[in-house]
Amino acid sequence: MAHKKQSLVEKEKKRQDFGFGTKATSTQARLVKADGDFNVIKLGQSFEVKLNLYHRLITMHWSRFVGLIFAFYILLNFIFAVIYYAIGIEHLNGVFAQNGLTQFQEAFFFSSQTLTTVGYGQISPTGFLTSMIAAIEALLGLMSFAIMTGLLYGRFSRPTPFIKFSKKALISPYLDTNALMFRCVNERSNQLMNVSVSIILSRNEEVKGNLIRKYYTLDLEREKVKFFPMSWTIVHPITKGSPLLGQTPESLAASDSEIVVALEGTNDTLSDPIYARHSYLYSELTWGAKFQSILETEGDAYILKIQDIDKCESAILNE
Amino acid sequence: MAHKKQSLVEKEKKRQDFGFGTKATSTQARLVKADGDFNVIKLGQSFEVKLNLYHRLITMHWSRFVGLIFAFYILLNFIFAVIYYAIGIEHLNGVFAQNGLTQFQEAFFFSSQTLTTVGYGQISPTGFLTSMIAAIEALLGLMSFAIMTGLLYGRFSRPTPFIKFSKKALISPYLDTNALMFRCVNERSNQLMNVSVSIILSRNEEVKGNLIRKYYTLDLEREKVKFFPMSWTIVHPITKGSPLLGQTPESLAASDSEIVVALEGTNDTLSDPIYARHSYLYSELTWGAKFQSILETEGDAYILKIQDIDKCESAILNE
Amino acid sequence: MAHKKQSLVEKEKKRQDFGFGTKATSTQARLVKADGDFNVIKLGQSFEVKLNLYHRLITMHWSRFVGLIFAFYILLNFIFAVIYYAIGIEHLNGVFAQNGLTQFQEAFFFSSQTLTTVGYGQISPTGFLTSMIAAIEALLGLMSFAIMTGLLYGRFSRPTPFIKFSKKALISPYLDTNALMFRCVNERSNQLMNVSVSIILSRNEEVKGNLIRKYYTLDLEREKVKFFPMSWTIVHPITKGSPLLGQTPESLAASDSEIVVALEGTNDTLSDPIYARHSYLYSELTWGAKFQSILETEGDAYILKIQDIDKCESAILNE
Amino acid sequence: MAHKKQSLVEKEKKRQDFGFGTKATSTQARLVKADGDFNVIKLGQSFEVKLNLYHRLITMHWSRFVGLIFAFYILLNFIFAVIYYAIGIEHLNGVFAQNGLTQFQEAFFFSSQTLTTVGYGQISPTGFLTSMIAAIEALLGLMSFAIMTGLLYGRFSRPTPFIKFSKKALISPYLDTNALMFRCVNERSNQLMNVSVSIILSRNEEVKGNLIRKYYTLDLEREKVKFFPMSWTIVHPITKGSPLLGQTPESLAASDSEIVVALEGTNDTLSDPIYARHSYLYSELTWGAKFQSILETEGDAYILKIQDIDKCESAILNE
Repeated sequence: MAHKKQSLVEKEKKRQDFGFGTKATSTQARLVKADGDFNVIKLGQSFEVKLNLYHRLITMHWSRFVGLIFAFYILLNFIFAVIYYAIGIEHLNGVFAQNGLTQFQEAFFFSSQTLTTVGYGQISPTGFLTSMIAAIEALLGLMSFAIMTGLLYGRFSRPTPFIKFSKKALISPYLDTNALMFRCVNERSNQLMNVSVSIILSRNEEVKGNLIRKYYTLDLEREKVKFFPMSWTIVHPITKGSPLLGQTPESLAASDSEIVVALEGTNDTLSDPIYARHSYLYSELTWGAKFQSILETEGDAYILKIQDIDKCESAILNE
Repeated sequence: MAHKKQSLVEKEKKRQDFGFGTKATSTQARLVKADGDFNVIKLGQSFEVKLNLYHRLITMHWSRFVGLIFAFYILLNFIFAVIYYAIGIEHLNGVFAQNGLTQFQEAFFFSSQTLTTVGYGQISPTGFLTSMIAAIEALLGLMSFAIMTGLLYGRFSRPTPFIKFSKKALISPYLDTNALMFRCVNERSNQLMNVSVSIILSRNEEVKGNLIRKYYTLDLEREKVKFFPMSWTIVHPITKGSPLLGQTPESLAASDSEIVVALEGTNDTLSDPIYARHSYLYSELTWGAKFQSILETEGDAYILKIQDIDKCESAILNE
Repeated sequence: MAHKKQSLVEKEKKRQDFGFGTKATSTQARLVKADGDFNVIKLGQSFEVKLNLYHRLITMHWSRFVGLIFAFYILLNFIFAVIYYAIGIEHLNGVFAQNGLTQFQEAFFFSSQTLTTVGYGQISPTGFLTSMIAAIEALLGLMSFAIMTGLLYGRFSRPTPFIKFSKKALISPYLDTNALMFRCVNERSNQLMNVSVSIILSRNEEVKGNLIRKYYTLDLEREKVKFFPMSWTIVHPITKGSPLLGQTPESLAASDSEIVVALEGTNDTLSDPIYARHSYLYSELTWGAKFQSILETEGDAYILKIQDIDKCESAILNE
Repeated sequence: MAHKKQSLVEKEKKRQDFGFGTKATSTQARLVKADGDFNVIKLGQSFEVKLNLYHRLITMHWSRFVGLIFAFYILLNFIFAVIYYAIGIEHLNGVFAQNGLTQFQEAFFFSSQTLTTVGYGQISPTGFLTSMIAAIEALLGLMSFAIMTGLLYGRFSRPTPFIKFSKKALISPYLDTNALMFRCVNERSNQLMNVSVSIILSRNEEVKGNLIRKYYTLDLEREKVKFFPMSWTIVHPITKGSPLLGQTPESLAASDSEIVVALEGTNDTLSDPIYARHSYLYSELTWGAKFQSILETEGDAYILKIQDIDKCESAILNE
């Protein structure tokens, strides 16, 4: 009895699990999106997490980031201009305008000169309140600027791998059998070290009448390379034991198959670990083709033609 | 003889130790607090360590941090205002006030304009001493600001995991036995990779008439997942060999049991390792319940309802 | 049949691969250049990658970096001077020059005072347009400066190992056989921990009439040291199984042999992993020589004479 | 014959090596100094390495660092004052002094107002040359300040473990044999995770009439703890196979014995790996003593009395 319990538990332990949950039912939903992100929407996050300003400011597009800084700058100056105007324009030395709008304009520019700590001095504060507000605005300016410095450094120094994957994965002849192959290359000129890759097949299977999502690790010819200076063709040989053995384009479509790729390595310029993900849907497999070499030697250097990463020719599959 | 010595030593080596010390006697003290910190107070730290300004300034609450900056700013300006006033207000060009208090005020604002390097110039220093003090104050301002920049960056870029654990751990039916289960989810939208978890049971036991605190690792169904995009239910099957086998709510209360959880992983946006700890006291276990799924599919995306992490239904335990 | 397939695949799996690609044909091209970089030129990189400003600004020479900053500063001031001049010099208070060139000069210096946020105020903006441009220029100044701060920090804090390798690798007598030996030392005064090294022999071989580039890991006497405070002589004993067994200077030249060295460790001051590469061409081997010690003790300290790293004496090879 | 070669090489491979070199002859030199640094002086470093400004500015004492900044500030202002004075004090608007010294003083303060970008404007530059120098000085000021910001952040964020080791190592009774014991504690309030320790005995031995320095790893009761919230007593049981078996205070002194401790772990606040080294000379061993507990429970917290880390009582050694 105890023995039987033990064995069911042991069996469960051996089941492969990659953290995608075990109850995910059939869906057309892709697990990993084209850009390598997981296709999961999180609801019910706490406000603090939803906000998560740093992460968003670090990862948003440059044009949006610069736009936000300008908007923030204009807004802050506007708010302080309103305050200076409300206290009384007579507390700003050097403002001689009579017109209300022009006065407000001058208050706005005084604010900008204070916030950036330029402080030309052609306009200057008098009276306790205006002087105090100006003192606080200058401190705020320094703090905003300190934050901007940190954000810019964070944006710049964020480890962004530029791993380019071939658009298609191929089913190619390989030795005396066939294999699933795709190719990747580090676009950057820095070096990646100790690069390892793992690939997972995710597909629907009918178990006792229910459609269940199942996950399989695919064995690779090579899971790790010490250096990654050139291109790397990742090869899963379709031999006995491979869940791809005996599959056809039609059967993969029917089971809504997806191949998820995860790559890890270390950037040797900045000593950061880097991660890249990619996924090939069944519709992104080409059957009966093989990659053409993109590495040439010219004079005494090796030439890697990154633009040819997708170049392949048709090939007759074995058996 | 030598043989016997050897074996006692070998036996000692095999004893599990998690760094909590081996002589901790019975206490109501919780080992890990609700926020994941260890419940240990350290006395006799050296002054330098006690101070440890960087660590405190990095980890204190934002409101306190901003408050401290303002207080420091006011204080520094006050001190320099006293110095300028003491040297003589006549060495500040542009101060025309006759009243002592107003003169001090102007010295204060001159100081603030120097410290922030705004330097409007409506007030300016003359004479060697006042000019020198102003030159030093401007340098001090730049240094303070440099420190502030570093602190703000340090605060922002600190790896803060937002792992949410279910409030309760459940004793649930599992296959044909029972299991201890709790659930966690990464609230943030960034990805955690290579996440592993280990859990320890800590309880009092009577050994030769003495109450001793003992620690046991609990075996898990799965100790590591490659990805963590959804929720993860951590499962300790209560099988032969589990220290929870045969326990009841009453026996766990009597032995002052605590379950300590430690989670490790890597943040793939910033490539930082992250750590999270949690603890379940015996009073935070629910017997005879099981978690309900919080993952749904809608259109072609997965939806994860984080707010439902504690949702469970009652379930009849096996045997 | 299935068995035969399996075994071919298994055989392929056992082949050593270091990420250099397997189809590289014979060439005079050195795989690793003198400075440790791979001798690979990448074509077809996307514009974003080619630009990769951060990486280039971080790794360029100091003199170029400072030159670039000055050029950028002059250029930006020139552009803004043109704008101020175009709007009308009468909107810059304090410019009394009549001469067009002198007026432009003053606009240029006003721009520099705004960009650096010095803002003396002897020249100051009036009118909406000029004031607005000045407000934007001050913000631009702060942003440029924030970027400069980040770049300077990035340049300074980049982990740069100063591993000095001996210029030559030696074939020395070793125990009762011979060995390939070279020496390295950490020039810096910081400590490297957990340093490991691996070396690869790359050479041409004729396989079925085709010249193929082949790669072999060379076994080392010791692959890892816990500490690296002194010098380390890396030793590959030429015993049975070594691809160097039976080789001569002539045979290594004929096969265009290259020995690639990769070293990894951790810098304990900054806790960064460090990487160093080196390569010895067949022409950089000295046959029949051995290294002389560069470590001495004087008083109660060890003295390491780094300048003597190449010092060796001739020695008679075994057998 | 080939077999014999092989076995000599194999034997050599099994010899323990910790990176201290193998030819170090007898010396009174301590391998690891009291502060954990290696007792090695490196000669012949390249100029660039010797300079290594960043490393020195990051690790020097705070008082020296602040002193250096002030000295640099004064020096830079002095140099620019000389330049402005040489160009002609008449190009500084607002300087009315007739006296040469006072004029120089004003040039000095103008320089300081430019370098810090305060720019009050009571003194301002006129003429191309003086204006250009001022523009360059302001840029230099910003660059110096950017460097200062980076250095301050680097100083603050440098991972500095505060592992306190007991001053003495004890030879204590342990189970039914004896053991070498010492104690360490993390003084800081942050947490260290996955802490591992290794200890090495270094001593002189006579081999064929020559004094040779030999190194032995000492086996530990426990080499790694998952958490390190309290104190940790590291225990090397002196059993069969221990190089300390049968040793006496006199024999350890005669062989100039030193015990080197290396500790590694991860700081969970900043996610940095940390390293600590320590060493016990033969004269820092206490024979026949055991540590007293420094952990108490009070109310519902554990209290760790760090100041009592050296507290021990005499104990009778076994056998």
